[in-house]
Amino acid sequence: MTKVTCDMAMSVDGFVAGINQSEAEPFGEGVGTRLHRWMFDEPEAHAAVLAAIDAPRAYVMGRNMFGPGRGAWDLQWKGWWGDEPPYHAPVFVLTHQPREPLAMQGGTTFTFVTDGIESALAQAREAAGDGDVAIAGGAATVNQYLAAGSIDELRLHVVPVVLGAGERLFDGVGAFDLERLEVSGSDLVTHLSYRVVR
Amino acid sequence: MTKVTCDMAMSVDGFVAGINQSEAEPFGEGVGTRLHRWMFDEPEAHAAVLAAIDAPRAYVMGRNMFGPGRGAWDLQWKGWWGDEPPYHAPVFVLTHQPREPLAMQGGTTFTFVTDGIESALAQAREAAGDGDVAIAGGAATVNQYLAAGSIDELRLHVVPVVLGAGERLFDGVGAFDLERLEVSGSDLVTHLSYRVVR
Repeated sequence: MTKVTCDMAMSVDGFVAGINQSEAEPFGEGVGTRLHRWMFDEPEAHAAVLAAIDAPRAYVMGRNMFGPGRGAWDLQWKGWWGDEPPYHAPVFVLTHQPREPLAMQGGTTFTFVTDGIESALAQAREAAGDGDVAIAGGAATVNQYLAAGSIDELRLHVVPVVLGAGERLFDGVGAFDLERLEVSGSDLVTHLSYRVVR
Repeated sequence: MTKVTCDMAMSVDGFVAGINQSEAEPFGEGVGTRLHRWMFDEPEAHAAVLAAIDAPRAYVMGRNMFGPGRGAWDLQWKGWWGDEPPYHAPVFVLTHQPREPLAMQGGTTFTFVTDGIESALAQAREAAGDGDVAIAGGAATVNQYLAAGSIDELRLHVVPVVLGAGERLFDGVGAFDLERLEVSGSDLVTHLSYRVVR
């Protein structure tokens, strides 16, 4: 059965991005690659984790993760990831601004969903078949799905840095229990995976 | 040389206590022993961690951790811990209300410090000799010492629960780097210890 997963790289103080995210600094002022360095510097050490991030057959992401700006679409903007985004699967982007679907190289298609998080998740489930669906981010989107009780598995990649401010995971999600599944990591990151208990 | 350490049991969403702490519910409404169950249910599994919590030769704690209420002292109140508190060492309590020192059984003395966090830490260092000093809590006190850059080693005991609200660790401490020292744990808790890099 389809599982809904969510992988988030997070500072020790609970932020998945800093303040003032922009096109120049998508993870916020001064954050750069600090939360994701483990992916690039030590891919072999985290091969199993990276494979799990890559495994879902469909993704849902927020408008703010797809690109900067909140108004009308800049139709030249095709995401942060170049011509061949790393998803290689259907990606459903939550937005209030309708836009035609975008087919990218390597199997990624961006479909823009204007009728809410339940619709986006339903479309992603449909697209994933018997594969898993991942909520890709950012924080606001993940928090909405956590609050709705839609996420089955939460995989936190805790980086040894205190950001002090930014986009906070778990904001407004209410209270619930988790069940610890696995712990692994290196000096650059600790992977903590949990099953959400409802 | 004396190290300043801090051990905090914390929910995955960064709270060390829930809302509405009271004499009946010192860790906040509905929290009970949820953050500390590992200490009581599996002391053998966490023997090294518990020994480290016990090792410091002096402690500093906030008024709110010593007891409920914020006004004039109820002189009958001698802390939460009965006649023989588990510190077995000098404990310096931050407060705005002067009070005579309290000598308890087993070597714990509570000394009430009214001239601020630097004074309390200096007195604890003096009392500890060449032993370590621990900042015992609560969140507001730890956050003040983190903001001041006084803590050398931060040991988080992350419990698989999302509290949703309460006393938040890292509030207002600014940004800094950590160096991961050790990771261990069980299903009930993940121990993450860090050196604070300044």
